[in-house]
Amino acid sequence: MKSFKEMSREELLSQKAELEKRVEEFKAMNLSLNMTRGKPSPEQLDMSNHMFDSLSEKGFKAEDGTDTRNYGLASGLAEVKKLFADVLDTSADNIYIGNGSSLNLMFDTVMRAMVWGEHDSPKPWAQVEGRKWLCPVPGYDRHFKVTETCGFELIPVPLKEDGPDMDIVEELVKDPKVLGMWNVPCYTNPDGYVYSEEVCRRLASMKTAAPDFRLFWDNAYCVHHLYKEEDKQGRIPDILGLCKEAGNPSRVYEFASSSKVTFASSGISCIACNEENYKHAVKYINVQTIGANKINQLAHIKFIPDLDALKAHMSRHADILRPKFELTNEILERELAGTDAATWHKPQGGYFLSVFTLPGTAKDVVARCNELGVAFTPAGATYPYGIDPDDSNIRVAPSFPSLEDINKAVEVFAVCVKLSAVEKLLSV
Amino acid sequence: MKSFKEMSREELLSQKAELEKRVEEFKAMNLSLNMTRGKPSPEQLDMSNHMFDSLSEKGFKAEDGTDTRNYGLASGLAEVKKLFADVLDTSADNIYIGNGSSLNLMFDTVMRAMVWGEHDSPKPWAQVEGRKWLCPVPGYDRHFKVTETCGFELIPVPLKEDGPDMDIVEELVKDPKVLGMWNVPCYTNPDGYVYSEEVCRRLASMKTAAPDFRLFWDNAYCVHHLYKEEDKQGRIPDILGLCKEAGNPSRVYEFASSSKVTFASSGISCIACNEENYKHAVKYINVQTIGANKINQLAHIKFIPDLDALKAHMSRHADILRPKFELTNEILERELAGTDAATWHKPQGGYFLSVFTLPGTAKDVVARCNELGVAFTPAGATYPYGIDPDDSNIRVAPSFPSLEDINKAVEVFAVCVKLSAVEKLLSV
Repeated sequence: MKSFKEMSREELLSQKAELEKRVEEFKAMNLSLNMTRGKPSPEQLDMSNHMFDSLSEKGFKAEDGTDTRNYGLASGLAEVKKLFADVLDTSADNIYIGNGSSLNLMFDTVMRAMVWGEHDSPKPWAQVEGRKWLCPVPGYDRHFKVTETCGFELIPVPLKEDGPDMDIVEELVKDPKVLGMWNVPCYTNPDGYVYSEEVCRRLASMKTAAPDFRLFWDNAYCVHHLYKEEDKQGRIPDILGLCKEAGNPSRVYEFASSSKVTFASSGISCIACNEENYKHAVKYINVQTIGANKINQLAHIKFIPDLDALKAHMSRHADILRPKFELTNEILERELAGTDAATWHKPQGGYFLSVFTLPGTAKDVVARCNELGVAFTPAGATYPYGIDPDDSNIRVAPSFPSLEDINKAVEVFAVCVKLSAVEKLLSV
Repeated sequence: MKSFKEMSREELLSQKAELEKRVEEFKAMNLSLNMTRGKPSPEQLDMSNHMFDSLSEKGFKAEDGTDTRNYGLASGLAEVKKLFADVLDTSADNIYIGNGSSLNLMFDTVMRAMVWGEHDSPKPWAQVEGRKWLCPVPGYDRHFKVTETCGFELIPVPLKEDGPDMDIVEELVKDPKVLGMWNVPCYTNPDGYVYSEEVCRRLASMKTAAPDFRLFWDNAYCVHHLYKEEDKQGRIPDILGLCKEAGNPSRVYEFASSSKVTFASSGISCIACNEENYKHAVKYINVQTIGANKINQLAHIKFIPDLDALKAHMSRHADILRPKFELTNEILERELAGTDAATWHKPQGGYFLSVFTLPGTAKDVVARCNELGVAFTPAGATYPYGIDPDDSNIRVAPSFPSLEDINKAVEVFAVCVKLSAVEKLLSV
């Protein structure tokens, strides 16, 4: 299709009429669809339904003989640590296993630093006036909310196809008030980009003014490939190894969870870090809790005993998710290609994609969709403080709805994107 | 038996010789017994083994239709809140359901106050120089450790048969630096005392200098009766109601868990509080986590659907625990009654009892037991900073060992208590 930007006023008006006709048709359908939530679908959840069935029959003993029904093994089952270590391509020595929410582990890690500092902190972070945190954008709103709530000024950093803009990051970390940075290195939320090895190396080796600067490395989607892994998509290097190699061994806390492997919010999660960070964290975690749910850990490791089993399990997830992502992409291509009304990246994994509409139209698009009964994540949600300075980015979550719902919802979305663009261009 | 304190030197020496002979006999047995841990026994854990068996068959839907396998219902299942409300004799409106560790909920509650203060705080607790916390003694070491780690000065308060010495408490809370107080109101850890209604009322109504003073009300053993409830043992009033009635509605955070109902560390837990505290807490909890394990909540509520089911389940626990507590008490009676070498209270519930040895001998007793292969909780552990000023209190945990092990271990213990006492008296 011809670019809207190159259309004459008459052409735009004719587009507008056509699009408004389609909107009327959508209205008549009384739709009620939801594309907001990065949730696994029921079919995906069904894959793990039988995880608990034979627990009582097989007994509740961990590999080392520990009775998982009782107190003990506060940092987690060794065999579960090993699986996470294999997933993250790191050592099992300094892995702590938590409950379902890896966000909880991240929040608690910030809170420990707020009250006691890190092992290499000049003072507790709560005492650092004007503390700042780097936020690659667009990004994950719940990450941003953690450091916002803890009183950090959130500094947006543009995210490129190969990761955060490192020239900018390297400048920003010269400020001693910059204490950390959010990262979803593999299939960024929401764009689905994968950090390049070079970006990872630069993050690991850059000079930071704060001695206790921390990368929060949320490897949420590290095994969540839509296509075969051999395609080399979604392979990122072991960041812990890179940081050690670069002489910054304490720079990173890595996180992962099974939320989109087994059950969202009822899975297991982990922190992986170096020995100093581990000792420091566990000193406080051992005051905080008697440990995470070990029966759930056991159920998980019996159900998914090793990396091969995990890969096989994840490829069944991919078989369910891939058509949804491809359908979404097809509709966007069909409706929007060539119009210049939107750009987007086609992710090879993860749970989201994100669409950049004509600047100044994202809120309008989401409002139009809502009016037609199709819910999208509020525009701006992918930016610190919920403010997208370009009013352009919209997160699309195709995992939960059925193909039929996606088919309709994304068409509605694309039509609204175009209509907003046309009206914007006409108003100039 | 005649009181050691009234014995002549000759009588004491004869006692000593007799006791040393028994010690030699114990030595020859090469014992390896453990009385340190307040853990449920395998037989108790077996009672809940089949909790997960039929989850997949019955489906994973909460009563309101929510799929517990997915995100949502971050504050917990309504039916689980209702059960905890029934247990705590309070309303389900302001209950948050957490994962297995109620200690974790307590720690997090202190941490929120450290960083942001309570809703009625003049400033965050981390900014209160010289902050203090009241600790009824003997008490629970892990409670003490939480507020110690958060920089509070721990102020011991003597615990009496009806609860903390309220004359002392009422004086101490006139200090605006005193921000809170630990409580295990029902079957105190380790003495097994039950707070009287009068003590509860005084705690609820006393004037505190700190406007944001908080009672941490760890109702860990509220359904953990060894005898029939009708005996009126272990009935404490609803503290939330009392605080409201007294005009101090925000004074208390109440906690409970299923750690000693189903599985230790793999159960469910709760915070119950008033609306202002709830709103304040949940505002931050919703930033911290996507919620606790809902499948585990569902498994629990299907297994124990209501208060009657819970009482029936707990009476089966009591049937296993009661003989252990009674045997412990019998041996202590047989060996120690009349000697004045020790005093103790016979608990009607909970997980511990505690023995007060002759002042200055507790460490010696524990060391002697250890030498004979019988492990007891380190003397002092039940006091702030691990220091019992009288060196007199020893916690005894009879829940985990078998009757046979208890029989031997408590005999060894009693003999060591006597030997230490005799030597102490001889040395004066």
